[in-house]
Amino acid sequence: MRPIDALVNALSDARVLTDPDVIDSYARDRTFLEPGKPLAVVLATSRDDVVTTMRWATEHRVPVVPRGGGTGLAGASVAGDGSVILSLARMTAIRELSPADEIAVVEPGVITADLDKAAREHGLMYAPDPSSYEISTIGGNLATNAGGLRCVKYGVTRDSALGLEVVLADGRVLNTGRRTMKGVTGYDLTGLFVGSEGTLGVITAATVRLRRAPAAPPATFAADFSSLRDAGAAVSAIMAAGCQPSLMELLDRATLQAIDEWRNIGLEPGTQAMLIGQSDAADSQAAVERMERICTENGASFVAVSSSPQEADELIGLRRLAYGAKERQGACLVEDVCVPRSALAEMIGRIEAAAERHGVRIATVAHAGDGNLHPVFIFEHGTVEPPPEVWAAADEVFKDALELGGTLTGEHGVGLLKRRWLELESGPVAGELQRGIKAVFDPLGLLNPGKAI
Amino acid sequence: MRPIDALVNALSDARVLTDPDVIDSYARDRTFLEPGKPLAVVLATSRDDVVTTMRWATEHRVPVVPRGGGTGLAGASVAGDGSVILSLARMTAIRELSPADEIAVVEPGVITADLDKAAREHGLMYAPDPSSYEISTIGGNLATNAGGLRCVKYGVTRDSALGLEVVLADGRVLNTGRRTMKGVTGYDLTGLFVGSEGTLGVITAATVRLRRAPAAPPATFAADFSSLRDAGAAVSAIMAAGCQPSLMELLDRATLQAIDEWRNIGLEPGTQAMLIGQSDAADSQAAVERMERICTENGASFVAVSSSPQEADELIGLRRLAYGAKERQGACLVEDVCVPRSALAEMIGRIEAAAERHGVRIATVAHAGDGNLHPVFIFEHGTVEPPPEVWAAADEVFKDALELGGTLTGEHGVGLLKRRWLELESGPVAGELQRGIKAVFDPLGLLNPGKAI
Repeated sequence: MRPIDALVNALSDARVLTDPDVIDSYARDRTFLEPGKPLAVVLATSRDDVVTTMRWATEHRVPVVPRGGGTGLAGASVAGDGSVILSLARMTAIRELSPADEIAVVEPGVITADLDKAAREHGLMYAPDPSSYEISTIGGNLATNAGGLRCVKYGVTRDSALGLEVVLADGRVLNTGRRTMKGVTGYDLTGLFVGSEGTLGVITAATVRLRRAPAAPPATFAADFSSLRDAGAAVSAIMAAGCQPSLMELLDRATLQAIDEWRNIGLEPGTQAMLIGQSDAADSQAAVERMERICTENGASFVAVSSSPQEADELIGLRRLAYGAKERQGACLVEDVCVPRSALAEMIGRIEAAAERHGVRIATVAHAGDGNLHPVFIFEHGTVEPPPEVWAAADEVFKDALELGGTLTGEHGVGLLKRRWLELESGPVAGELQRGIKAVFDPLGLLNPGKAI
Repeated sequence: MRPIDALVNALSDARVLTDPDVIDSYARDRTFLEPGKPLAVVLATSRDDVVTTMRWATEHRVPVVPRGGGTGLAGASVAGDGSVILSLARMTAIRELSPADEIAVVEPGVITADLDKAAREHGLMYAPDPSSYEISTIGGNLATNAGGLRCVKYGVTRDSALGLEVVLADGRVLNTGRRTMKGVTGYDLTGLFVGSEGTLGVITAATVRLRRAPAAPPATFAADFSSLRDAGAAVSAIMAAGCQPSLMELLDRATLQAIDEWRNIGLEPGTQAMLIGQSDAADSQAAVERMERICTENGASFVAVSSSPQEADELIGLRRLAYGAKERQGACLVEDVCVPRSALAEMIGRIEAAAERHGVRIATVAHAGDGNLHPVFIFEHGTVEPPPEVWAAADEVFKDALELGGTLTGEHGVGLLKRRWLELESGPVAGELQRGIKAVFDPLGLLNPGKAI
């Protein structure tokens, strides 16, 4: 009997897919990276399926690549030769939602937006909202410590993760963390799993924190700038004034053009950047009017303010179109540097300089309030690997971010894409310790090998 | 040459204390626990002193007990036989304070309140404020992941820690984390060190997040209740209504009596509990009036509201007197269970029942908005160990907290005091993994042996 047949026999409910074409569709994420030839896909429906799969993998020494919605942007769920893909997408139960304690216990396949919707029925919200939140899963969000638009006010996924149920590489089940708002019993294993990109264990449930949803509708502004640096200065001034936006997104001209070509938004010739901000505070209208004034003081050529939820959705929708608009124009390398807020304008300038120096198209959107920039390098459709000049420009952008006190990745993770720059940021001592931690949790190196560290 | 003389020679600036009486005064924290006979105290003044001490400790296989302000309540800095106490209290530099990026880089000996004061000169604040914040250090706060009064709104110490400089057991220097608001490069080593009670490395600097200080003065309320359960119900209702208090403290009758005997606060005979709440929001007066109404609806016998900063200080001062008032009455075992918020009233009832069943005096204060209770077990002054009935009652309280979905320790840590209950909460798998992590960072087991895990 082949090992894979032993797995099929051992799994009572889970489907195992072995058609090579079907496997290939599960072996990719949203990067350009080409997968290897995995053995099979397990569609787990329960924790027991995961336990069975990991016991089998340990017995047969088969690498396992856990997978959520496949929306990753760094290659963490791109599967290699001879591995088994473990999809958690069918584990979609919200096991518990407690309005009194403001927590939910959810399985990893729950779509992020679905949890948010379920919470809102009780006047609560699930705050983390990566741009992909209508197709990404909680499990994937936890694996990458996903950020999003609202995290400028509400923090990243880690800030909402209280406890986890995890299946270890050898099939043992571990419960970490707690159901309480605070707790300091032992080392923070919950925090260690969040952002570990499936290399330490397979998350089969999470206890997450919910928050009170804002009572009033948000107010929104959009401001056009004829200079990117002015827009960056406006962001710094808004944050320094303590306006507490619930989101603040910056789109550069290349991004606006890509959207304009697709959806005709009437882009003015002189507009170099657009800033979209929102407040969900009790005094949201006043907060947004303050932000409007600061934009005008910093040279905005046009500012519109609205408290209509419909207009807000349209503006935010514009932002959410950005990635799709760029994908229409070419293959994309989506980057994710994050710098101290005061270095935002400087970093934008350096990205523009790198684009010019290397003759590369870069269109940037930023979660500006966090200093988190997504320069998207656009190259020819159908090209498998980004051409050398793209890598050369990306290399400069990474090094510039580090030089400005920043990081390689604000919210997408390291995956496969950023491993070659990792030690530039973390240094050799951290690398050694991280490999030591990996060996404690996964001594045979079966969980998502070659990723994250 | 004795090993300790080699250390004295190797340290250029740091003072080494070897007088046994002096050592003893550095070997204790605020628990009743009796220390062993350490070899010496090193008063480090720089990272280099820490590096020298750890290299020497590794060479000579000497256990090292790191120490901040000595305000711990779980025994984590109680030093054992043959160890060297490494005091970080003289490393008091605020290396950097950036208003633009809302961060500070501080050494571990900085007093928590001093950092807050320095931040407020720039319209910012350092949010975490353990009750001991005028005498505790940032290093100690990081080591225990300290909470405090304000964390109901602003989170615990971990939520303010962005990056660390750490000296490892063998003297190597590690930099973790970042200066940016977000970042997901590699495993979260910063989060792993926070709360690890000096067992993984010695923190020699921290990059911490500052926050905008509230612009308006806070508004405050105090409410008397004739039933603890009513007070608990009021807390749940206030949180469920989304009032977002910036602190909410509950004092039971035994605590109020201890304060009354010391400072004569005119305690009414029927008062069983007092709730003190504050809002620092822009509409603080309205928020506090909402909380007042909820208290009245939940049976409060008296409620006072004030927007005077002086009256607020007096009320919060009352809360800060609680521990001192109890220490006047006897030796104290200060506990720290945390339960889901909805279980607060039930937990208070169980603490009262345990006190009655075992004939033990327990006075409880709670960071009520977090569900974090500090039942203080009071026994005879001069008693070295708590008597058996205290441990029996404490054992019940711990198990009750776990049964209600809670944790042994919300913010004080495990130290020495709670190790025997640890596995009840974490389970054997977590214990094994935590010991594995410890071995990666400190293979010789020299850093604060026998603590935390």
